[in-house]
Amino acid sequence: MNGLLTDLYELTMAAGYFQAGKAEEIATFEFTVRKLPEHRNFVVAAGLPQAVDYLLNLSFSGEEIAYLRSLKQFSHAPPAFFDYLRSFRFTGDLFAVPEGTPLFAGEPLLSLRAPIIEAQIPETYLLSAIAFPTLIASKAARCVQAAAGRAVVEFGTRRAHTPEAGVLGARAAYLGGCAATSNTLAGMQFGVPVSGTSAHAFVMSFACEMEAFRHLQRTLGESTVQLLDTYDAIAGARRAAKLGKPMWGVRLDSGDLAALSRQVRGILDEAGLPDAKIMATGDLDEYKIRELATGGAPGVPGAPIDAFGVGTQLATSADAPALSAVYKMVELSISGIKRFTAKYSADKISVPGAKQVFRGETRDVIARCGECGSGEALLRPVILNGRLAEPLPTLEEARTRAAQSIAKLAPALRELQVTEPWPVIYSRELRELIGCTQRNLRP
Amino acid sequence: MNGLLTDLYELTMAAGYFQAGKAEEIATFEFTVRKLPEHRNFVVAAGLPQAVDYLLNLSFSGEEIAYLRSLKQFSHAPPAFFDYLRSFRFTGDLFAVPEGTPLFAGEPLLSLRAPIIEAQIPETYLLSAIAFPTLIASKAARCVQAAAGRAVVEFGTRRAHTPEAGVLGARAAYLGGCAATSNTLAGMQFGVPVSGTSAHAFVMSFACEMEAFRHLQRTLGESTVQLLDTYDAIAGARRAAKLGKPMWGVRLDSGDLAALSRQVRGILDEAGLPDAKIMATGDLDEYKIRELATGGAPGVPGAPIDAFGVGTQLATSADAPALSAVYKMVELSISGIKRFTAKYSADKISVPGAKQVFRGETRDVIARCGECGSGEALLRPVILNGRLAEPLPTLEEARTRAAQSIAKLAPALRELQVTEPWPVIYSRELRELIGCTQRNLRP
Repeated sequence: MNGLLTDLYELTMAAGYFQAGKAEEIATFEFTVRKLPEHRNFVVAAGLPQAVDYLLNLSFSGEEIAYLRSLKQFSHAPPAFFDYLRSFRFTGDLFAVPEGTPLFAGEPLLSLRAPIIEAQIPETYLLSAIAFPTLIASKAARCVQAAAGRAVVEFGTRRAHTPEAGVLGARAAYLGGCAATSNTLAGMQFGVPVSGTSAHAFVMSFACEMEAFRHLQRTLGESTVQLLDTYDAIAGARRAAKLGKPMWGVRLDSGDLAALSRQVRGILDEAGLPDAKIMATGDLDEYKIRELATGGAPGVPGAPIDAFGVGTQLATSADAPALSAVYKMVELSISGIKRFTAKYSADKISVPGAKQVFRGETRDVIARCGECGSGEALLRPVILNGRLAEPLPTLEEARTRAAQSIAKLAPALRELQVTEPWPVIYSRELRELIGCTQRNLRP
Repeated sequence: MNGLLTDLYELTMAAGYFQAGKAEEIATFEFTVRKLPEHRNFVVAAGLPQAVDYLLNLSFSGEEIAYLRSLKQFSHAPPAFFDYLRSFRFTGDLFAVPEGTPLFAGEPLLSLRAPIIEAQIPETYLLSAIAFPTLIASKAARCVQAAAGRAVVEFGTRRAHTPEAGVLGARAAYLGGCAATSNTLAGMQFGVPVSGTSAHAFVMSFACEMEAFRHLQRTLGESTVQLLDTYDAIAGARRAAKLGKPMWGVRLDSGDLAALSRQVRGILDEAGLPDAKIMATGDLDEYKIRELATGGAPGVPGAPIDAFGVGTQLATSADAPALSAVYKMVELSISGIKRFTAKYSADKISVPGAKQVFRGETRDVIARCGECGSGEALLRPVILNGRLAEPLPTLEEARTRAAQSIAKLAPALRELQVTEPWPVIYSRELRELIGCTQRNLRP
């Protein structure tokens, strides 16, 4: 399953390893965020269940193998290679940082040790399956931080890069701290709380706004959220107020959200609806949320908005839509003899040797795997010998881990603007290995 | 199938329409790119087969219905609504602009006419399923334009927002003009030509670079592409040249690609390998491609690069990762009487009435559906009464349409910088309808 959902070169390299007699060599590859995305002080690890599911089910169907054999790139590959693919299974080990863990530049998120072909083929899938939800969880954490206690709801499936990405994005946004999602399938599949209001089309489909509001209320009862701005937001607010309970509240989707929310709050309060809530939507991001939540200037009170619905900016991580993640071979064991590997090309170097990350009170230390260190060891066994070591934490547990770990970060790191990076240093043993590997390199 | 892959509010509105007795009303919704993405002079329509496949297979499983019934938002919905969902099928009509057509701001890409619930529920899925490939095809067209005849290959699955988005992105990039993709599954599923080289890990896994090169060549023969920069690109080029044929060529992935490509070209030529090609990769986008392809300044010749591999920037449309697309109700037919609908809120208005787009020699005209116009009518029937009207064009046909239509655009629109927009006007009849609808509006 999914054997071909990878870059062709992973498969041609696999054929090359096979033909060179390297199939028994044991490689360790690490997934590392080379540098933090723009505007970020940390990222929140996410996507592990999808990565694990992939590794545990990775295989090649007869149709996939037939397709490969039809390609000119495989015309010289030995027939035994296709037999190998036919019985291919992932038999290696995966170590991973738990979902919900904040990470900094240079820290491995995954470490995968397996026969070299089994370690090489997953590169493409793992990079995408981890990087995307990590971006979304990180962006969600920023929006939630900016909202200062008010709810942030993920409304972005329509902007996600495919509807299916919307489902996984919704999961990641919840992990990063969002209160709910509009994506119904994410609700069913992952237990993410679902939330929704109504659209302008609903209002427009009735002869007048009041009729639309009345019908929505009849259908949704206390879950009713009236959308106010189809024609005129203030007139809409008066109609919603006149209708009264039951309702959750109202939604504003355009205009000056701060000013409108104050007017609407007044209208609702005057109508004896102090419990009716106000949700704001419309091209929001963490900066606009912060301005609305805090008032934006000293002495200006925050807008009376109870919940923010965030779409485009969250579902695409629009200001940083790609994670600079790499998956690099760090060591290779040939008949039990270890060789450390690194890349020393112009601007893109990699660090040799399997690693561990220790999170301390004042800094993180990237050490060699097996070293003793102080603090929490972040990389933990997930798959051993091709089998799940223990059930993964639930989504709720990952979400709690995210919230608790972010709350423990140095306060400046939790601000929206970029600050001094958290200190991440190499252990002495790792520094020695770097020097030694570079000296011994034989291109 | 896929019934829940939508925003919750589509489903709560569906319940509202149902309860209000509106299930028989026929609505027309249009998918329109409200404004062009930043830096774009046009977009290239893509994603239609996925949208059609969704509509033809849209249904609700028993498990999905049971999940909806468990939600508080549906606690007041009548039981008959769930019976309705159980037998739900899309029975309406879809008109669409063919894949590969360049479009401008305000032009409908889809027009969907169906009983209102059938037209409402698909909103979320259609927006995402069309917007994402349209963004990628548009970005690909820019890269191809910048490459001025040299090949552009899509290498971005690892950066795509989920591995599955990588498959559909690869298809869209090919549609937009790319020569091939690294995504193997896109090759098998869609017949996109596949291409690949090798990674640094392959080189590092051998005791020396020469050994790695030799093994790759043995496995790949004339498809061999040696990656030069694991240790030192020039030394790598000398080794690849010494090894000689068979090979397709070499790849440079870091450093000063213009300077290195010249040196490498010299080394290959000197070794009697004038046919060996040079591919360049490494954070490329259309601007870097243009600079490499043209030399970047008057009198400077282009770099001797035969193919560009583009990853991150293409697979995420990084400089414009979201399309400002909307799906708006434009008319509603109640017992055969038409009502035109539009939204007139603050900064987000919509245009009433089902439309057609006529592409002329000097301008496009957005007219009312059924009007006579001159030029090519872009919206064509795709689904009629819930059935495919005729087989969709193949991917190759869509790719040809894209290439031919882009070649016919005014030259300034094909440049990378933003220029005067192509004139898009409303027909007199449509202008009259807009005025009339606004005057008759009864909020």
